[in-house]
Amino acid sequence: MAPPVTVNSINPKVIECEYAVRGEIVILAQKLQEEITKKPEAHPFEEILYCNIGNPQSLGQQPITFFREVLALCDHPSLLDKSETQRLFSADSIQRASKILDQIPGRATGAYSHSQGIKGLRDTIAAGIEARDGFPADPNDIFLTDGASPAVHMMMQLLIRSEKDGILCPIPQYPLYSASIALHGGTLVPYYLDEATGWGLEVSDLKKQLDAAKSKGIDVRALVVINPGNPTGQVLAEENQKDIVAFCKEEGLVLLADEVYQENVYVTEKKFHSFKKVSRSMGYGEKDIHLVSFQSVSKGYYGECGKRGGYMEITGFGADVREHIYKLASVNLCSNISGQILASLVMSPPKVGDESYESYRAERDGILSSLARRAKTLEDAFNKLEGVTCNKAEGAMYLFPRITLTEKAIKAAGEAKTAPDAFYCRRLLTETGIVFVPGSGFRQVPGTWHFRCTILPQEEKIPAVVTRLTDFHKRFMEEFCD
Amino acid sequence: MAPPVTVNSINPKVIECEYAVRGEIVILAQKLQEEITKKPEAHPFEEILYCNIGNPQSLGQQPITFFREVLALCDHPSLLDKSETQRLFSADSIQRASKILDQIPGRATGAYSHSQGIKGLRDTIAAGIEARDGFPADPNDIFLTDGASPAVHMMMQLLIRSEKDGILCPIPQYPLYSASIALHGGTLVPYYLDEATGWGLEVSDLKKQLDAAKSKGIDVRALVVINPGNPTGQVLAEENQKDIVAFCKEEGLVLLADEVYQENVYVTEKKFHSFKKVSRSMGYGEKDIHLVSFQSVSKGYYGECGKRGGYMEITGFGADVREHIYKLASVNLCSNISGQILASLVMSPPKVGDESYESYRAERDGILSSLARRAKTLEDAFNKLEGVTCNKAEGAMYLFPRITLTEKAIKAAGEAKTAPDAFYCRRLLTETGIVFVPGSGFRQVPGTWHFRCTILPQEEKIPAVVTRLTDFHKRFMEEFCD
Repeated sequence: MAPPVTVNSINPKVIECEYAVRGEIVILAQKLQEEITKKPEAHPFEEILYCNIGNPQSLGQQPITFFREVLALCDHPSLLDKSETQRLFSADSIQRASKILDQIPGRATGAYSHSQGIKGLRDTIAAGIEARDGFPADPNDIFLTDGASPAVHMMMQLLIRSEKDGILCPIPQYPLYSASIALHGGTLVPYYLDEATGWGLEVSDLKKQLDAAKSKGIDVRALVVINPGNPTGQVLAEENQKDIVAFCKEEGLVLLADEVYQENVYVTEKKFHSFKKVSRSMGYGEKDIHLVSFQSVSKGYYGECGKRGGYMEITGFGADVREHIYKLASVNLCSNISGQILASLVMSPPKVGDESYESYRAERDGILSSLARRAKTLEDAFNKLEGVTCNKAEGAMYLFPRITLTEKAIKAAGEAKTAPDAFYCRRLLTETGIVFVPGSGFRQVPGTWHFRCTILPQEEKIPAVVTRLTDFHKRFMEEFCD
Repeated sequence: MAPPVTVNSINPKVIECEYAVRGEIVILAQKLQEEITKKPEAHPFEEILYCNIGNPQSLGQQPITFFREVLALCDHPSLLDKSETQRLFSADSIQRASKILDQIPGRATGAYSHSQGIKGLRDTIAAGIEARDGFPADPNDIFLTDGASPAVHMMMQLLIRSEKDGILCPIPQYPLYSASIALHGGTLVPYYLDEATGWGLEVSDLKKQLDAAKSKGIDVRALVVINPGNPTGQVLAEENQKDIVAFCKEEGLVLLADEVYQENVYVTEKKFHSFKKVSRSMGYGEKDIHLVSFQSVSKGYYGECGKRGGYMEITGFGADVREHIYKLASVNLCSNISGQILASLVMSPPKVGDESYESYRAERDGILSSLARRAKTLEDAFNKLEGVTCNKAEGAMYLFPRITLTEKAIKAAGEAKTAPDAFYCRRLLTETGIVFVPGSGFRQVPGTWHFRCTILPQEEKIPAVVTRLTDFHKRFMEEFCD
């Protein structure tokens, strides 16, 4: 018998790939959770406070009623024939569900759809993009996917031929990108967001990193931009976006724009602009730039992570390349239909005059204004901690404060065979139940340490997060005072 | 500016990958469909008869009411608090939805779940496997996925390091396997199902192919078995399965068991046995064999393709390898929650005494008995065609008849630069509107020609399929008579 499958005989790319958002600290948190469920006094805290992942509904955020009404009706269309349904559902959710069912061949929500997603839903999404950007969008450019992650994988699979192919990625970055590049055997070419200027993106740094990669024989294929930023929470200025677009055009790079936080902007002085809008406003069309925009139902005010819906809008690729993208989509047949429906709903929510509009608006604004308050409270709290600085929480769902650790703490981390920020996060978790993800999981400027904290715990729990964190931090800094 | 992305600069593995189920013939069918929608007299048929893909609900099969009731309630849980709900939903669907919501942390169906899927649902699935097999199943061995395809990709990604790694696959095979192996850069090591013995699987042939691959320096890692068969429709005999298990154990191969058609058996003399049950009944445990079983909500009597639900049960892998499988699952966060719920429902449908049981049973048996009748009618029709032979339709959703084409037809295909069976299928489509997939899309013994036909058109349409096919075939054979 040949040797069985061991870690020494599996794909080394799988071993190389890392995914800190669900990594070591989170696995420990789950263990502690089980322990306190069995024995409430097992640890010096009553509950685990998950600040590690952008998963709002897991922390009590309620779904938008209109969206769920439409989904329920589409799941069980015979409800539409019952008189009780009029009393249980809003008129516009009934109307919307009927319209969606009419767009699905045979009204069959249990059938595989077109590989790119149901055409009628793509029409709705394209119309939503047009309304957002003021520039045309083509439903044939939309590929509906099970969340944004499979779309990112699809593009990496398309572009990466070998370790000689590079993808420019922000540092810090969302680890989906490093994981996907590792799994597809490419090279991550880092560019650094400038913490001192609110995580600004300097085109001069992009150029420097690109040239450095080229001089090592790397063929750089694409540039990833996450806007609003994950884990950094910055919102790019339109001027900055123009520079990025011009850079991609000039260098022949595919611009992979992660725009899943497009609805999550918390400051009045910044606005979300899609890269497609920016490039079209510069006069660049299909022939000028390869552009992919990723969107998801998991973020925004909707936060429907469990539904796994999303899409990518691809423009600028030739018909022959698109055929291969279509084929890749086909191999998995299609994305889930509920997620497809939801993607159409988030791009076309109730409008003024619709029966649901007022309650929809109240739910949406309630969530977004609460997120803005939570972000501000946490930002302020971080900035009050000794040795911690935190940029403004402009958007997305995260803060990424920087922590200056003492020599003694760094030494202790070394002895524990862990990164200093992971050491800090581990101690924080075991002493307070708060779960942050160490900055090392997102990469960072060497020698700097950070952690990512979501702004998602329910508003009434934020004071507890702040108090526990502040107390812990004080103790930690005293213990490891140089 | 560097050259833009062209077919010459994308990943050659993507170019190599083929997926005939949604390939050339199907794209042509969609085009014809659009043409007859616009202009009904454009072609000599009124509608396209899709026999190309296992997508039952697209052809009018209705979903199981109980499943959809539970899904709708889980999508919109506030329905559970309304009195009207009692009149609209069965008591056991209300009860089941409540139970499922209780199993989800915070009842949050819009949250990312555990990367392997919601624990309570995995408990239900494990109990369903135990009830089916009579051997224990561990919920920690279950990975819930968006249909079976992502699970297959995950295992290929884990096992394939380079083109020197081989995967034994049946020929003919479901093209997901060849596509996934191509995308992950491995080598498909073919073994041939024996058409003369009802698509039997000969272990002596397995051994021969394994040795041949080894002699070429290929490290064969796994054996794929599809049971019931796709595209061949055979159901393996238990004795045959024992031989396969013993072979995998002896040769140290991972047994990748595609068991998505486990509910689709149409002949009384055959029964589905899972490979896990067979291996456990032989006394082989965790230490003896690496076994992965794939299941999906897309097949069976439920046919919920659009829900993208499924799971894999992995046994025999060490804890360290499992950690890497877990990490791969984590990178995509989780599979969609509706699909997860549905996977638990198909593994635990209503039971005798439940309010829904009688209607559930009637729906299930109605679908399965109709499928059996359709399979038999088509099988008989194929066997009446000149130069066509078709094995018994024992299971799954397909027939894979063999067609002996004349020299003249083969020559005409050559002139049209297409495979002879693709030439036949193309002509069939343009003259009758019937969509088959050419055997060349599934691979076949060189020099033989086949096509795959699903048994899924609605029963009242089967006579039209038979008549149109029979008339076409006669004309075709006359036209290309040597």
